Amino acid sequence: MDKEEIISKLLAGEMKLYQIDKFSENATEALDIRREFIEKYSDCELSQIANYTLDMEMAMAKNIENPIGTVQIPIGVAGPLKINGEHAKDDFFVPLATSEGALVASINRGCSAITAAGGANARVIADKMTRAPVIKTESLVEAVKVKQWFEDKFEELKEIAESTTSHGKLIKIDPIIIVGNYVYPRFVYSTGDSMGMNMVTIATEKVLEKLYKDLGVHAIALSGNLCVDKKPSAINIVEGRGKTVVADILIPEDIVRTKLKTTAKAIEEVNIAKNLIGSAAAGSMAYNAHFANMIGAIFLATGQDEAHVVEGSLGITTAEDKDGDLYFSVNMPDLPIATIGGGTRLETANEGLKIIDCAGSEKVGKFAEIVISTVLAGELSLIGALAAGHLAKAHKELGR
Amino acid sequence: MDKEEIISKLLAGEMKLYQIDKFSENATEALDIRREFIEKYSDCELSQIANYTLDMEMAMAKNIENPIGTVQIPIGVAGPLKINGEHAKDDFFVPLATSEGALVASINRGCSAITAAGGANARVIADKMTRAPVIKTESLVEAVKVKQWFEDKFEELKEIAESTTSHGKLIKIDPIIIVGNYVYPRFVYSTGDSMGMNMVTIATEKVLEKLYKDLGVHAIALSGNLCVDKKPSAINIVEGRGKTVVADILIPEDIVRTKLKTTAKAIEEVNIAKNLIGSAAAGSMAYNAHFANMIGAIFLATGQDEAHVVEGSLGITTAEDKDGDLYFSVNMPDLPIATIGGGTRLETANEGLKIIDCAGSEKVGKFAEIVISTVLAGELSLIGALAAGHLAKAHKELGR
Amino acid sequence: MDKEEIISKLLAGEMKLYQIDKFSENATEALDIRREFIEKYSDCELSQIANYTLDMEMAMAKNIENPIGTVQIPIGVAGPLKINGEHAKDDFFVPLATSEGALVASINRGCSAITAAGGANARVIADKMTRAPVIKTESLVEAVKVKQWFEDKFEELKEIAESTTSHGKLIKIDPIIIVGNYVYPRFVYSTGDSMGMNMVTIATEKVLEKLYKDLGVHAIALSGNLCVDKKPSAINIVEGRGKTVVADILIPEDIVRTKLKTTAKAIEEVNIAKNLIGSAAAGSMAYNAHFANMIGAIFLATGQDEAHVVEGSLGITTAEDKDGDLYFSVNMPDLPIATIGGGTRLETANEGLKIIDCAGSEKVGKFAEIVISTVLAGELSLIGALAAGHLAKAHKELGR
Amino acid sequence: MDKEEIISKLLAGEMKLYQIDKFSENATEALDIRREFIEKYSDCELSQIANYTLDMEMAMAKNIENPIGTVQIPIGVAGPLKINGEHAKDDFFVPLATSEGALVASINRGCSAITAAGGANARVIADKMTRAPVIKTESLVEAVKVKQWFEDKFEELKEIAESTTSHGKLIKIDPIIIVGNYVYPRFVYSTGDSMGMNMVTIATEKVLEKLYKDLGVHAIALSGNLCVDKKPSAINIVEGRGKTVVADILIPEDIVRTKLKTTAKAIEEVNIAKNLIGSAAAGSMAYNAHFANMIGAIFLATGQDEAHVVEGSLGITTAEDKDGDLYFSVNMPDLPIATIGGGTRLETANEGLKIIDCAGSEKVGKFAEIVISTVLAGELSLIGALAAGHLAKAHKELGR
Repeated sequence: MDKEEIISKLLAGEMKLYQIDKFSENATEALDIRREFIEKYSDCELSQIANYTLDMEMAMAKNIENPIGTVQIPIGVAGPLKINGEHAKDDFFVPLATSEGALVASINRGCSAITAAGGANARVIADKMTRAPVIKTESLVEAVKVKQWFEDKFEELKEIAESTTSHGKLIKIDPIIIVGNYVYPRFVYSTGDSMGMNMVTIATEKVLEKLYKDLGVHAIALSGNLCVDKKPSAINIVEGRGKTVVADILIPEDIVRTKLKTTAKAIEEVNIAKNLIGSAAAGSMAYNAHFANMIGAIFLATGQDEAHVVEGSLGITTAEDKDGDLYFSVNMPDLPIATIGGGTRLETANEGLKIIDCAGSEKVGKFAEIVISTVLAGELSLIGALAAGHLAKAHKELGR
Repeated sequence: MDKEEIISKLLAGEMKLYQIDKFSENATEALDIRREFIEKYSDCELSQIANYTLDMEMAMAKNIENPIGTVQIPIGVAGPLKINGEHAKDDFFVPLATSEGALVASINRGCSAITAAGGANARVIADKMTRAPVIKTESLVEAVKVKQWFEDKFEELKEIAESTTSHGKLIKIDPIIIVGNYVYPRFVYSTGDSMGMNMVTIATEKVLEKLYKDLGVHAIALSGNLCVDKKPSAINIVEGRGKTVVADILIPEDIVRTKLKTTAKAIEEVNIAKNLIGSAAAGSMAYNAHFANMIGAIFLATGQDEAHVVEGSLGITTAEDKDGDLYFSVNMPDLPIATIGGGTRLETANEGLKIIDCAGSEKVGKFAEIVISTVLAGELSLIGALAAGHLAKAHKELGR
Repeated sequence: MDKEEIISKLLAGEMKLYQIDKFSENATEALDIRREFIEKYSDCELSQIANYTLDMEMAMAKNIENPIGTVQIPIGVAGPLKINGEHAKDDFFVPLATSEGALVASINRGCSAITAAGGANARVIADKMTRAPVIKTESLVEAVKVKQWFEDKFEELKEIAESTTSHGKLIKIDPIIIVGNYVYPRFVYSTGDSMGMNMVTIATEKVLEKLYKDLGVHAIALSGNLCVDKKPSAINIVEGRGKTVVADILIPEDIVRTKLKTTAKAIEEVNIAKNLIGSAAAGSMAYNAHFANMIGAIFLATGQDEAHVVEGSLGITTAEDKDGDLYFSVNMPDLPIATIGGGTRLETANEGLKIIDCAGSEKVGKFAEIVISTVLAGELSLIGALAAGHLAKAHKELGR
Repeated sequence: MDKEEIISKLLAGEMKLYQIDKFSENATEALDIRREFIEKYSDCELSQIANYTLDMEMAMAKNIENPIGTVQIPIGVAGPLKINGEHAKDDFFVPLATSEGALVASINRGCSAITAAGGANARVIADKMTRAPVIKTESLVEAVKVKQWFEDKFEELKEIAESTTSHGKLIKIDPIIIVGNYVYPRFVYSTGDSMGMNMVTIATEKVLEKLYKDLGVHAIALSGNLCVDKKPSAINIVEGRGKTVVADILIPEDIVRTKLKTTAKAIEEVNIAKNLIGSAAAGSMAYNAHFANMIGAIFLATGQDEAHVVEGSLGITTAEDKDGDLYFSVNMPDLPIATIGGGTRLETANEGLKIIDCAGSEKVGKFAEIVISTVLAGELSLIGALAAGHLAKAHKELGR
């Protein structure tokens, strides 16, 4: 079947999108046919989407189905950002992919203040990827037995889970929540440089096979939303998920004044009124100004899962006037990231990781510290700008 | 100064990134110098990031600072997706930018079931972009006066706010929350085809000038986190933000069986155990399986603000067995989107919008209905897969 | 049938508890038989429960079924508490029923500091009792029609609702939330001196009859939990329920030192660390130290519904060091109270109300201001004690 | 000083309330003087409050300050309620103190259905009383050290904590949350028959002395709101606090029809629409109809802390139609209760405990199972009534 024929059949609804691959010589030919069909169907030209340079054969094997090309998002850099981490100890230029004007400039301003003040302190304090199936039993009496089984057999189950993976470690199955005849055991793993969702799903499934063999009950869903993946949740805030990271800095009075055009007292005041009391009054789960902006921009530039921006938006910003100097901090309990696997292998994203020397194995701790330090910079800059009363002015000057 | 000299100065820390622009002939030359500097600084090659085709002069004016190129993210398409909306009435192929393997295929499966069943119903039920400054007064007695002022002067303030914009309309200032001596008035606007954040910020600022003139009090922050922008919040769930949209479908028993390989009863059961009870037990704000995945993928493919994925992750999925047929629905109270402005002008994203005929003015209602129908498709597919017990199997088959 | 015979039949399971009334001359005789049966059944003596003085005939008509006597809870008084309200302008001694040692003493200490500083400022800023049924329709298209019906017919529906009550006023039906084919219209009433739950239930039911007549759909539950009654909820925090009240005070430095043995700075610091950041980190909805203690004690002493302590526990405490003086405030968005009806008619509770001149009509504004001022006193005392580091010491001294 | 003189001085503001005790022969004389003063001050008669029979000398030593008498609240009984617990295995008549008409009758109806169906299953699955101080350090680097200290020294700290109490056991210090330079370690104890708040406060304080000795840092508040005491919180839902209990029952179709006048399907439907989806849409933390009503009534009748009704209001109700039979359950993650100490020693409350044979040591497991079974009865009755559409009718019939 030639291209014209395929497109005709697609337009007539006699062929499915994924069937194109069967009639094409290779992935990129199929991709071109598919895009051409879309152009015809939608009566539009997709010449820019066609202008990709990624290896689409590889992408189709790992990252995408029914591809027609790529979207391009501008990458800017902010820095130098000095970091005194446990893993990241250097001055970094951070890649940020965004279409929100003024964002990179604002983060850059935060980097400038931080670097001038001697650098951000950053630490990874936990590594916990989770999967929590939901098991339905006949009654709470049986549910209690299932809970007991998980507790009694932990060492054995750990062995079973870890047999499926070379990197993942099952740390605990806790909490195990019972609601009526449902049981929600939360499997907590360390996953190192991988984000780890697939790894922990497979390991957990293996344990569930054992459960079925022993007790004859099975999960009605491999994820029972107690994980909690890609949704804002209190359990992730309290227990941590992905990497749990913290960062802070003490900024001398004169740097607050010269770099941020405001005072420690004013920043403290805005932080309390907005990030603490305002979020409380709004019933928000996120006690910060705009973590999501920085997380979104770094995630895109480095091939992280864009839906994990949701979890990365959680956390608390604190600010305190210390005799004129400014103590400023952010905590991020729920940061799912990776330096290998998933989108990190896509060529442009992989280059993004390389800019900060975070591509590949043994890099995720460093990457986590750079991520949170960038969040610190962005928060500092925005709260500083609000304190100085020039948010709107900044937007006007940049013409947006 | 020539390129080598600039890079030397940058490496020596004697020049700032943004200063490159001053010494370059045009934006793209500066961009190249900047990237070359980063390559030297980080000792890496950025040949892929360099391979962009966007108009970077324009991007620098509107969307990015310190650019070095672009990140490319694969776009796949899912469809046809039949929609019976108020604005969207057609079969659509939806562009999805993602690096998560199996996602497009999964959404596509949902589209197939929906289209076979006659199409998704979708409606936009509200259009509310918000901005809520925080005003600090001397005491609650004064705070009560400020609240009263906003209530008494509403018509006048509406006029002031709307004088700053051709499209935005101030619908109400409500609620106005008092906490101690703080006042948080929530300005609610309709913004049409724009996402509207800048519009409502400028309009609100104008009203605050009047407040200062009348009562001598001023906002300590233009955003007091009661807006709530880019953070998960109950107030946005209850009051709505951006577009508030709903979608549903009734799927005949045989289509549930043939397309989803399961039953309405099984889907109902998984939905209750996972999306309702599981989310409740986890203290989550999102009673769904993975809205964020679909929102993330459409947002990137169409130039929306990636940080708004956070708000788009909120909503409730319902499923009910109706004598063997499946009633299935999603609601999204908090969907900030645009068909003009921001990232929608970037060339590839604009083509993304064109695929679904949503680029430009008078298109946002249609776009909202397509977005939520895609979310419906993705939810249906994943809950269906869990019900059929083949989530992991799907991943294995696709080799991920 | 005589007493012995009745008790025999009860012990043999041949008679129900409520049937005793039929065979007794009056309510108190039945009560005595019932208690005697319980004593026999449980092999215990209930001589103290028997020692009541309430009019049990009346209580059985309004407040209780199957009574066997009363529980006694000690009432202590705290005061004088000076209040500069809109309705309450005097020095009050507040009745507090509790069994938690040190609570009255602690509140009393707060009253002392407040009165010395010139009195608490208090204001009622809203009066909103709510009822939100849940209506199930066939589809979202029909759900949208139901929403529209409520919006279009509001004036007519208001008339219908208000025809059922002499005091209640229907302020709005808003928000009206759609989830799939469910509609949750929130009826908001002002109810004056009554707590108003029954009033608004009856009025809302009347409107639902009209809905059924017009559109043929009906509520599947008169309360759909969007009210939200006796449960902690963000919607009540954001929208208000019952009375919404605020109170604050500025306490001069020397009074902070002499009465609270600490400093404004220390109190500010504890309030941020505990009530703001601590509650945020815990995923709590209540940003205060112990509102529930004061609410519980006043509610019992004045005949309020004890289950409404849940709603009364919500609110935010703020504290700020103002050049050595202490600004301190509490807000309570969700305070369902009454000065007539329900438990306020019971003789001891009614005397409790009389102590603060709040029994009967036209008193609820005054009562609300006294309640929140007492909460202010209790918060101030506990935060002050924590700041001074002597919470445990206080308990030790009092031997508890 | 004689009575008249004391009252004169009080009226003149020359004496404090608590000073009366010094000039009186005994506690009850002082109590009478205090009440007489209040009568004069407030120009009212308090003859009913005066009618107490509690031992006020004892009460003043343990439960109250500045007493003037007692409030009486009617106690009704509901039952028989058959329970198949681990600790409670019998038919019980449950004491309920309330002023809300129809509540006891409604719970009684639930008991009737449960008992007819063979009894409620109930289990205590955890016993965890908590205290979480907040420690402020210089920086996150120091905060991480403090966290490490708690983890490394756990066995030693356990010994220190347990040296202060004969019953309390320190189970874990977890989670330990870091926000900026603040550390919130959550001390988790089992406390047996005591509610345990004072016990865990004293034990935790002892550990903090060791912290100060070792690292030189100290808590700025003994409670940092991560406990979380008397406030609704996600951490308590996820981790449990007080007793964590569950109860369920399978009710045959004919009993649903005859006792509840409805069907399993209708109850399932109402439960989903109201308790699951309605609560989700309202941003509520409690996915039930009215736990707080039952908790409030039992708590008052048995001398529990009324402010703990807040925590007892949390939990999820599930309902499922199983081929016509009704599976119905409640879970309560956060139930702080006691059978010794606090208000349980007050004479009438202690008799309340005796009615269900729960006064004294080794009874708290039994008591917890009775409490949750009563909650099950109340939920079942209300959801049943809503399903049958006769809530309002019931109120009318009872004339309230």
